[in-house]
Amino acid sequence: MTLPLFRTTLAVDNKYTIGFDPVTEADRGAETAIRAVIAEHFPDHAIIGEEWGSSGDSPFTWIIDPVDGTRAFISGAPVWGTLIGFAYEGVAIAGLMSQPFIGETFLAVPGRSTYRRDGGAAQANCTSGLVDLAAARVFTTTPALFRAPELAPKWQAIEAATRLQRFGMDCYGYALLAAGHADLVIEPALNTYDIAALVPIIREAGGAIACWDGTDPTPGGNVIAAATPALLEKALILVNAS
Amino acid sequence: MTLPLFRTTLAVDNKYTIGFDPVTEADRGAETAIRAVIAEHFPDHAIIGEEWGSSGDSPFTWIIDPVDGTRAFISGAPVWGTLIGFAYEGVAIAGLMSQPFIGETFLAVPGRSTYRRDGGAAQANCTSGLVDLAAARVFTTTPALFRAPELAPKWQAIEAATRLQRFGMDCYGYALLAAGHADLVIEPALNTYDIAALVPIIREAGGAIACWDGTDPTPGGNVIAAATPALLEKALILVNAS
Repeated sequence: MTLPLFRTTLAVDNKYTIGFDPVTEADRGAETAIRAVIAEHFPDHAIIGEEWGSSGDSPFTWIIDPVDGTRAFISGAPVWGTLIGFAYEGVAIAGLMSQPFIGETFLAVPGRSTYRRDGGAAQANCTSGLVDLAAARVFTTTPALFRAPELAPKWQAIEAATRLQRFGMDCYGYALLAAGHADLVIEPALNTYDIAALVPIIREAGGAIACWDGTDPTPGGNVIAAATPALLEKALILVNAS
Repeated sequence: MTLPLFRTTLAVDNKYTIGFDPVTEADRGAETAIRAVIAEHFPDHAIIGEEWGSSGDSPFTWIIDPVDGTRAFISGAPVWGTLIGFAYEGVAIAGLMSQPFIGETFLAVPGRSTYRRDGGAAQANCTSGLVDLAAARVFTTTPALFRAPELAPKWQAIEAATRLQRFGMDCYGYALLAAGHADLVIEPALNTYDIAALVPIIREAGGAIACWDGTDPTPGGNVIAAATPALLEKALILVNAS
């Protein structure tokens, strides 16, 4: 539902009356398709989706972002992904990130986080193991996320403390962290569907992820993901002191 | 020479004693390989490369950036590219941008700009045709490029005047513009090897590209690329007034 619309002229609506938040047919169509499969196989499970809201009441919840990185999607950049998380009693325990243009799938189930390129074999995700903040490669989607006066010093502190900063990645940054290519991702004000699928992909690869107050990030919020628990702790201390 | 080293642990040197500018074995190996092919077929032509400098003296010059987007490369993001430009008397007339991980090639010769995905047929690149600045999708590698006091208002003006801003693309942003997915790319202080290959890819797709003072961008400098000459003119007026 997403790939045939990527890099084509497509209808772009404004989700909100103020500001620009593109919602594409790809978003809506993909979430509808994913919901139909879940409803068929697990009719008792709850579902939360970016496009069509919440349904059901169960300790088992599927959490869907059909196109995470809609702005990347509508500008042709292949760093968006389809996210499907699966939570038990509010904590994500399995997750999928799919980038169908490149043909990549990041998948986690309890005890295992894997990467697969279309046509290739699955290989285990393993974070970089970095513990040194000064050597970290850090991703955030855009520094504009930190424009609020209370947030700006937090990004400035992270930028000053790390080796390399990259922008423009959305979910792709978290996936690269799980696979060992990035060391830190920090983003404020995420929704549950932005992050739930990525939590087990990172944790089962040896990484650590939490909200800035140390709580589990499955429900969303201000999030840091790190290659190791030690690096996460250093980043949390820095962010909370800034 | 590049792809086998992508997403692997590789030696990262510091090109400059101050600051961080990674140069990988991929950079050096790829430029050496490209230079060898050019020297074999066109021994009289001049060559300018990012890694190994200038050689020869001829109205025909090959301009090489073996890995444009080294920072993307070392953080696993598949938005770097190998750039090979070809200039006659200082103006780029042919160019190649290759992204081998995704398997994409953007190629321009006089009269034609094409896109090809590995295993697929070549298709013509055609820019979006946009003339309205307020509707533009604009790319720049990072807003940090505009940190100098005289540059900051220029980026702020572009940001305020356009619909959507994306970061983190390097050469990939210019290629997406040629293919119609982005409308504007603006970056200061480019070297000739950052931009020469992209000039004909954009121009032969209907786009326009110039330095902020209106001169040809083949030698590098402060550059704007746009989907149309009319959009370029609007962006140049805005940048020069800010």
